[in-house]
Amino acid sequence: MSWQPNRQSATTLQQQIIQWITAQVERGDWVAGTKLPTQRQLALQFDVNRSTVQQALEELKAIGLLEARVGSGIYVTHNSWHTLIQQTQPNWQTYIETSLHKPNYHTIQLINDYEQRDEMIRLGTGELAPSLLPIKEIEASLQELSFQPKALGYSSPQGNEQLRIAICNYVKKRGIDAEPQHVCIVSGALQALQLIAVGLLEQGSIVFQESTSYLNSIHPFQSVGMQMMSVQRDKQLAQTLTQRKRQAVFYAIPTLHNPTGDVWTAQEKRTLYEACQAARIPIIEDDVYHELLFEAPVPPIKAMDSSGQVLYIGSVSKTLSPGLRIGWLIGPTTVIERLADIKMQTDYGSSAISQEIVLHWLQSGKYDQHLSDLRQQLQQRADFVEQILQEKFQEVASWQTPKGGFYIWLKFHQPIVDKEFFMRLIQRQVLINPGYIYNPQDHHHIRLSYAYASYEELWEGLEILYECAVKSMDFY
Amino acid sequence: MSWQPNRQSATTLQQQIIQWITAQVERGDWVAGTKLPTQRQLALQFDVNRSTVQQALEELKAIGLLEARVGSGIYVTHNSWHTLIQQTQPNWQTYIETSLHKPNYHTIQLINDYEQRDEMIRLGTGELAPSLLPIKEIEASLQELSFQPKALGYSSPQGNEQLRIAICNYVKKRGIDAEPQHVCIVSGALQALQLIAVGLLEQGSIVFQESTSYLNSIHPFQSVGMQMMSVQRDKQLAQTLTQRKRQAVFYAIPTLHNPTGDVWTAQEKRTLYEACQAARIPIIEDDVYHELLFEAPVPPIKAMDSSGQVLYIGSVSKTLSPGLRIGWLIGPTTVIERLADIKMQTDYGSSAISQEIVLHWLQSGKYDQHLSDLRQQLQQRADFVEQILQEKFQEVASWQTPKGGFYIWLKFHQPIVDKEFFMRLIQRQVLINPGYIYNPQDHHHIRLSYAYASYEELWEGLEILYECAVKSMDFY
Ligand SMILES: Cc1ncc(COP(=O)(O)O)c(C=O)c1O
Ligand SMILES: Cc1ncc(COP(=O)(O)O)c(C=O)c1O
Repeated sequence: MSWQPNRQSATTLQQQIIQWITAQVERGDWVAGTKLPTQRQLALQFDVNRSTVQQALEELKAIGLLEARVGSGIYVTHNSWHTLIQQTQPNWQTYIETSLHKPNYHTIQLINDYEQRDEMIRLGTGELAPSLLPIKEIEASLQELSFQPKALGYSSPQGNEQLRIAICNYVKKRGIDAEPQHVCIVSGALQALQLIAVGLLEQGSIVFQESTSYLNSIHPFQSVGMQMMSVQRDKQLAQTLTQRKRQAVFYAIPTLHNPTGDVWTAQEKRTLYEACQAARIPIIEDDVYHELLFEAPVPPIKAMDSSGQVLYIGSVSKTLSPGLRIGWLIGPTTVIERLADIKMQTDYGSSAISQEIVLHWLQSGKYDQHLSDLRQQLQQRADFVEQILQEKFQEVASWQTPKGGFYIWLKFHQPIVDKEFFMRLIQRQVLINPGYIYNPQDHHHIRLSYAYASYEELWEGLEILYECAVKSMDFY
Repeated sequence: MSWQPNRQSATTLQQQIIQWITAQVERGDWVAGTKLPTQRQLALQFDVNRSTVQQALEELKAIGLLEARVGSGIYVTHNSWHTLIQQTQPNWQTYIETSLHKPNYHTIQLINDYEQRDEMIRLGTGELAPSLLPIKEIEASLQELSFQPKALGYSSPQGNEQLRIAICNYVKKRGIDAEPQHVCIVSGALQALQLIAVGLLEQGSIVFQESTSYLNSIHPFQSVGMQMMSVQRDKQLAQTLTQRKRQAVFYAIPTLHNPTGDVWTAQEKRTLYEACQAARIPIIEDDVYHELLFEAPVPPIKAMDSSGQVLYIGSVSKTLSPGLRIGWLIGPTTVIERLADIKMQTDYGSSAISQEIVLHWLQSGKYDQHLSDLRQQLQQRADFVEQILQEKFQEVASWQTPKGGFYIWLKFHQPIVDKEFFMRLIQRQVLINPGYIYNPQDHHHIRLSYAYASYEELWEGLEILYECAVKSMDFY
């Protein structure tokens, strides 16, 4: 054992060590069951850092050539030969672990997963029930579509121009003055956030937001190295924003906040706008629930934006169909052009057919008609769920009467909402969205959705939720 | 002038200086036309680095409060008050310039732009002519669609399961053995590359590829900090791959390469596969032109992949419609699950309607039927263009007879293809894809597409191309 890696070689020391050990096994010098020298001894022999040895050994363990026996050391495995023959695959696990994008939180992966199972009662889902989607009407409208010759080709960077015009007309009703060049069609609001993250912010930028937020359950910003910073919308806000040391944006959901259901007053909107204006910080106004207010909405922040400081996001996911994957982003031309350029580099535009469908629904008036039906149905569902809450949950939880949208932000009197609680409900075939995915410190809340489950399921699911909650509270 | 910034403050020195100077102007202490002290004097006064002063002044110039007069110094501008009132916008340009994602090359932005103009003859477009898209048939098939209640909701991470089954059956015919769990539906092949870039590679990873490549015209990898490395597929290849110092992948377009039109033999595929296997490097096999070979295709590399080393990419963009934005990625389950998780975080899945359409076309046999028509039409167009080339271009250029797909990789005898040449053709309303967007060193080639322009336009466009080429060659 007098070999040492070659420091002049183009191959890394670690790689050379891996190759050398592999060769020992391959040539039969080290047979199955051979105990390796300690890491310190190997480091000495190879004249390298211990961490280099350790990393090489880790990789060899990962591929199954070596194994650690607890308290005893590292050995050549008994199926090492088999491994050598088999192990022609790249080490995918290493690729995955070292890559740039973070995985979803485990709880959210589980939610994505269990949502596929028909037997689950989905008490938290942020999506309209299939029965609330106008499926028959969408099918019917497909028959009314006819495409211009170019409509099914690659799209222009900002998306279908007719659709952009229709969106400008549509948002005019809520007080937003926009021209087609201020609009970029996106594949849902989530993509808009993604584009802003990579197209407008430098690494380490600050994303200000409220402490409980949809943005904590996904991570378009976190994945590219932005810092999330929770702030309170109080008297100190303007000062906090001004004192930032880095580029920043403010992310807000002023209408029917996900998950809290909060609706800001006109005054609250103005206060935020002015604080951000003084600090020269752009606002991302995520307004995907705008259409679902039970009462007439107050104009969005974007409506008071004379200086091009607000990036405004809308979507048809919460109203018409999430499967269409169509949303829009409205902002100053320079910003929109920039983000459209990146969109082209990302996916060459959104589905042309989905765009045509949304255009048809906006132009024909079908959309507005559908919305007024939808609000009624959501109101009924909200009433139904609140009735159950009032009958059963008064002693264990509190909540606000919802003003629209999908959610009741149910607060248990005790901090019982942890992963175990979530899993216990899964065992009883009830799927919830626990508050901690929106605020890691929060173990009091769950996001209850009255939009997805059927009336029977809502009834049954809430019964089970109640039982589990009471059981958990007994520990307090 | 005895103020100094406060080093204990949470606000950066630069920001404090900006605020202080702004205040001087606001209070009227420094009126329009005031000449500022030199940067050195200011740095001394503030007791900060000159670069801090410089950056603060730059920002104040950017917003129009100050201006530099050449050779004289820095002054308060005459519309500084106006600026102060107006300047409430965030400085978008700074946001854009410092952000993570690179802009498209200017030539490509121009191409995206001019492609929107009807008067242009598009000699380079990588897209089927509207007349080759089965628009009427797609419209008709929309009438045959009917959706399951859940079909228009948010999608499962890997996409429509029926579609994944149909894709498995479809690729079986080319020798690929895949199960639905090995498939992820993507919004076009480009998105597949994007997902691999952020979901499997660490920063600084190496993407091996041929020196001329589609990947140089887009930058899903470059934008997230990967190193592109051109390699020749020669005897040294295996060694080059093994000697890498970092994680790596090999990107290949073995069938109807974009832009060269090359088609690898079975032997070439095997050689690459074995070299990558020895080096344990994954292969990205981009096979979006597979269906468009005029002769029967050789099985893809993925068909020989027993060890899960190849990530295989297909798409309907080049065959049915780019506007659908549907492609697929086939690979080992762990990898697919990982990339599907990121896809969920990126855009919550691809358009459900587009997926249903592709499913319908695959299942009904319409797709295969359409493909055989399409290949014939492309063959006719290829013959037509080659005829013109033979009549006119023999003395100025050379080329290979195309084996399928859209492109002829036309090589001029002189290196005349630069940005000026590109712009001169635009002035004559002819849009080309110059070779340098696929290989920055290449000024000999253009990618000629016979797939997009009409026969008349092809004739006229080639005439103009010929004239411009001859004119440019006269300089040599
Ligand atoms: C506040 C908020 N923004 C954005 C989204 C994403 O919407 P889309 O489906 O349009 O991407 C959601 C959906 O959960 C949401 O609640
Ligand atoms: C080799 C290659 N890969 C991928 C793509 C992108 O295809 P899609 O439209 O499916 O994203 C193209 C289209 O230009 C291409 O030529």
